[in-house]
Amino acid sequence: MIKEKGILFVLSGPSGVGKGTVRKALFEQDTALRYSISMTTRNPREGETDGIDYFFKTRDEFEKLVSEGELIEYAEYANNYYGTPKTYVQQTLDEGKDVFLEIEVNGALQVRENFPEGVFVFLIPPSLEELKDRIVNRGTETEDKIKARLEAARDEIDMMDKYDYVVVNDNIEHAVKKVQSIVVSEHCKRTRVAKQYKQALEDDEK
Amino acid sequence: MIKEKGILFVLSGPSGVGKGTVRKALFEQDTALRYSISMTTRNPREGETDGIDYFFKTRDEFEKLVSEGELIEYAEYANNYYGTPKTYVQQTLDEGKDVFLEIEVNGALQVRENFPEGVFVFLIPPSLEELKDRIVNRGTETEDKIKARLEAARDEIDMMDKYDYVVVNDNIEHAVKKVQSIVVSEHCKRTRVAKQYKQALEDDEK
Repeated sequence: MIKEKGILFVLSGPSGVGKGTVRKALFEQDTALRYSISMTTRNPREGETDGIDYFFKTRDEFEKLVSEGELIEYAEYANNYYGTPKTYVQQTLDEGKDVFLEIEVNGALQVRENFPEGVFVFLIPPSLEELKDRIVNRGTETEDKIKARLEAARDEIDMMDKYDYVVVNDNIEHAVKKVQSIVVSEHCKRTRVAKQYKQALEDDEK
Repeated sequence: MIKEKGILFVLSGPSGVGKGTVRKALFEQDTALRYSISMTTRNPREGETDGIDYFFKTRDEFEKLVSEGELIEYAEYANNYYGTPKTYVQQTLDEGKDVFLEIEVNGALQVRENFPEGVFVFLIPPSLEELKDRIVNRGTETEDKIKARLEAARDEIDMMDKYDYVVVNDNIEHAVKKVQSIVVSEHCKRTRVAKQYKQALEDDEK
């Protein structure tokens, strides 16, 4: 039996852009996506539950899992580890279900190395979009201030290049709708669909 | 002033798959897509209006437009010409609006040559999808009958390769939702979005 594999979707973006808020709103909707819960050594914040918001681990536990190759990406921020357990992602994709990760930019780059066939979505702040629109739509009318701000935004613009899609977080509802559309349309991609048909034709020849 | 260009979406598929029905249902929804009306020399059918369903032309008028290079694609079926006028498509894209074409397979291939940056969607009948699923999901259980039918479907499967997306017309509502998702997600594609940001950065450097 040849089972079609699920697709790995990764939502990332600059710190403070609202990745967590978009992810929460997405999972409040009806979705077939499976959310891969991150692992961390930081203390639970008020209202956070182990196994729902994060898997909370001690540093020793976390480092042991890293040494066993059980994380597909991890990083240290403010003296705490954050990472993505491998088993859940791999098993869920093998079962033909889509997995959704919401992680920091460095983590996303690590995941891209291990899952190049994943779909990477970069969330940008509306301020970056507005900045661009002011320059693109007004052309020569740009002021020095805009130029300086765009220059400062250059790092975020460079980060985009590693992603498949860019979604502006101008409004949670819009951003969620765009992510949902990306999920639907990725399943319609000819490169994916044709592979399934060609597989069927090959079986047909056996 | 640098204006962002619109995207050309082309819906095509084997004859009888229901392209026209999906297109009509799509335009009954709220959409920013502009429909490019085809031109034909066939007689209007009952209920069809010139300038809404088709631009109805005589053979002489049609051939004159062809010789003037005014059609981006055209073909003859059952002694009648069908084609897509160029001016409307080009002007609308230049204004930054998306254009939607619903045309036959041969026409779609002609459009691809002239608009390689267009987005091409192939609509397939549910029978083809069911056939594939029966083979892919059951593996060795396939019967000779299924094999023969898949063999016969090989032409349609080969046609897919020229398209960017494949949508199953199992249900009008589903098919329309998928086409809408493709439109939204194409606007989020990094390759398109990053180009706009890089354009802004270049202007910034002037």
